[in-house]
Amino acid sequence: MAGHMSAEEFREHGKRVIDWIADYMAGIESYPVRSRVRPGEVRAALPAYPPERGEPFKRVLADLDAILLPGVTHWQHPSFFAYFPANTSGPAILGDLLSSGLGVQGMLWATSPACTELETVVVDWLAELLGLPEHWRTDARGGGVIEDSASSGSLVALLAAVRRAGRGRNTVYVSSQTHSSLEKAAAIAGIGSENVRVVDVDPDTLAMRPEELATVIERDRRDGATPTMVCATIGTTSTTAIDPVRRIGEICAEQGVWLHVDAAYAGVAAVCDELRWINDGVAEFADSYVTDPHKWLLTNFDCTVLWVADRAPLIDALSVVPEYLRNAATESGEVIDYRDWQIPLGRRFRALKLWAVLRWYGAEGLREHIRSGVAMADELAGWVRASEDFALLEPHPFGLVCFRPLWANLSETDADAATATLRERLNDSGELYLTHTKVGGRMTLRLAIGAPATTREHVRAAWQHIETEYRALRRMD
Amino acid sequence: MAGHMSAEEFREHGKRVIDWIADYMAGIESYPVRSRVRPGEVRAALPAYPPERGEPFKRVLADLDAILLPGVTHWQHPSFFAYFPANTSGPAILGDLLSSGLGVQGMLWATSPACTELETVVVDWLAELLGLPEHWRTDARGGGVIEDSASSGSLVALLAAVRRAGRGRNTVYVSSQTHSSLEKAAAIAGIGSENVRVVDVDPDTLAMRPEELATVIERDRRDGATPTMVCATIGTTSTTAIDPVRRIGEICAEQGVWLHVDAAYAGVAAVCDELRWINDGVAEFADSYVTDPHKWLLTNFDCTVLWVADRAPLIDALSVVPEYLRNAATESGEVIDYRDWQIPLGRRFRALKLWAVLRWYGAEGLREHIRSGVAMADELAGWVRASEDFALLEPHPFGLVCFRPLWANLSETDADAATATLRERLNDSGELYLTHTKVGGRMTLRLAIGAPATTREHVRAAWQHIETEYRALRRMD
Repeated sequence: MAGHMSAEEFREHGKRVIDWIADYMAGIESYPVRSRVRPGEVRAALPAYPPERGEPFKRVLADLDAILLPGVTHWQHPSFFAYFPANTSGPAILGDLLSSGLGVQGMLWATSPACTELETVVVDWLAELLGLPEHWRTDARGGGVIEDSASSGSLVALLAAVRRAGRGRNTVYVSSQTHSSLEKAAAIAGIGSENVRVVDVDPDTLAMRPEELATVIERDRRDGATPTMVCATIGTTSTTAIDPVRRIGEICAEQGVWLHVDAAYAGVAAVCDELRWINDGVAEFADSYVTDPHKWLLTNFDCTVLWVADRAPLIDALSVVPEYLRNAATESGEVIDYRDWQIPLGRRFRALKLWAVLRWYGAEGLREHIRSGVAMADELAGWVRASEDFALLEPHPFGLVCFRPLWANLSETDADAATATLRERLNDSGELYLTHTKVGGRMTLRLAIGAPATTREHVRAAWQHIETEYRALRRMD
Repeated sequence: MAGHMSAEEFREHGKRVIDWIADYMAGIESYPVRSRVRPGEVRAALPAYPPERGEPFKRVLADLDAILLPGVTHWQHPSFFAYFPANTSGPAILGDLLSSGLGVQGMLWATSPACTELETVVVDWLAELLGLPEHWRTDARGGGVIEDSASSGSLVALLAAVRRAGRGRNTVYVSSQTHSSLEKAAAIAGIGSENVRVVDVDPDTLAMRPEELATVIERDRRDGATPTMVCATIGTTSTTAIDPVRRIGEICAEQGVWLHVDAAYAGVAAVCDELRWINDGVAEFADSYVTDPHKWLLTNFDCTVLWVADRAPLIDALSVVPEYLRNAATESGEVIDYRDWQIPLGRRFRALKLWAVLRWYGAEGLREHIRSGVAMADELAGWVRASEDFALLEPHPFGLVCFRPLWANLSETDADAATATLRERLNDSGELYLTHTKVGGRMTLRLAIGAPATTREHVRAAWQHIETEYRALRRMD
């Protein structure tokens, strides 16, 4: 048998893997951005059954190159503009590697105190960097925690809100632009879809209409429901629209409803003073808030930070203490046991990667990264605005630019089909990757800028490619 | 500002981190197993505010050594016998490093086909290695998926069960020995604690009593409840007791109730033919099954595998498709989108680490690892059995040995306190780390063997240390 990999073997293979990744980083532009494999192709190239005898590690790397890489869509490619960015960075990768190497399990403070205490420190640091309120710091009534995703963060916020409101016919308030994870969270929590209210948005701004929210909450309360949570979004997934958090918060405060703020993508932009306005009303009114350093803040997945203004209902909702987890530190009440802040029991030492990122970049470096994304988006938006062939969706406060090609003489249905064809031709080219959404019922392209490797030249090349393909398609009509 | 870490800087710092981990592996026995820090000590040693300017990476490593390591409890230490093992291994760490380096997001097949297809392959491989039924393979009706934890795996199994049964007054059946995550899952899913039935266990085997289960289900059905899921455990957390899965499964089949099998710790032991008996009844009756390669199968956290016999209710329960995630591959029905098999939307390329482990070790190497843990537990149990000072809990089919020191002339309460004192003296020594449970109301020590670095000599030294400390305490009485 192969036996365990010794420390010396690990040293040797580990350095090869580091070289592999450094080479991948340096050569990433040689790959098509979006994988070209067909369904089943990767699987068919792999053995159907596991090996009986151990194999040398180099064969894993060889198959990674030969079989897996063609099936990889390169999220770190500088011309990846699809969905939202999923930033990695050198310090984040190395922080995560240290976490894997230590192999500690941070379910309780007692199971590795540094895992818990570093997490408390870095989420407090991040609150400071984003200008979030003092009372959310863990030395006050609130506190932050690293979750695997904003989906899970919003789910535990909902569970805390249900705990505070009490179980009944709980109703939850979203808009048509709210992330699908809120609908999923409600379903998981046993809140039927009939109790998820979709509040109207303003057709121009795509932001939730607060007066409509107030009306719906009042009606529900009269009907005997328990209005439980409103989700306001700062930077929706579809178009980065921003709900009027202050006005929504005032309504939540009047009505005694939990205000959850989903700032998964955009929240980290508040590292820049000039973007702090996005959090207007958050300090006064939000009960919970999520943002994802794993999207636009250089920390590889998974790293969502959830803060709560009051940690008591969260812990009440999620704490179960069997005998085999009892320990003196927990019983002293002096420590945080983060298992009570999340769905799973076990947890990695994820704070290490966020710590490495915040130290390597410093506040200055983080601001520079966000600013460069916003500036490139501004420049692209200028080109779109100046073009007679495209309609730009305004505003575009962050790194996402949404726009719609104009197809003269085509019906809306045919124009949308032509836009989808354009998107597929662009993506098939391997030169860039972008995705779509629907705005006002119309197929709209989304170009999200924010990968660390992306420069102005990549954005310019993408725009030229879009214009060229658009003209080619127009000629074919 | 520091700016992004270049590929060449990553190469340099990455190799230092690999060296750091290799040195940590080689020198791990120089640390006390359990951290000795007091609550707040690590936090107090770290700056309260983040740095304004970026710092060199070497300062992260310096603070890791100086500030964090004293706060780390060393789960990979060969004398770590607490809780259950949380295995890491060289190939797993490197597989996870590749995942971090690629930085892909596998929420959909389309967002990186290799991420999904490799996962399908490795969970099918693991099913083969464990002798799990053919119809659980992804090319049949069932399928497997990597979840972050057995807690989350059991939660999604419960949601699938609720989907199949329909929402109503759903009742869930556990025993007093079932893992606390099932109670938590029920709470999350909106199933009140009054609808979680705790079925009696046999006081000798600590296994669920099937006749009692049948009675409770029948009574609930008469009372208008919707019996929804039974959780049977193979290897309970407290003592590795095994519920009678076949008999429970027959009842579930008669009653139309979902059978979930929690084999989080022990399931991986079925890589060994001589331990396959633990899964008796699973193939015929289980609707879902979880086991954790991140406990005893050499794959670092997080890596739970959940299988379902029929994937339809799982996907029905968890699928929500917003416009911005629509794509041709999903609509073709030819691909798996694993986001519909889990709580979060986003997901890491976790299959890489399990793939690296299965290839490096091969089936032979995995069996050897499990067998060595079982053999060491057997040997320790022999010493305990031979001692007049300790009572051994039988049977001990896996790597966990439970035993109770005997304190002549002490009341049960005083004896339990003495056992707790013994545990703390042992753990304070830094020479080993073990935890406790209660069996029949009595404080009982748990010594879980299974870290890859553990040898017979470590187990022998632990036992000698336990005997010595016990005698010292006896003399003090």
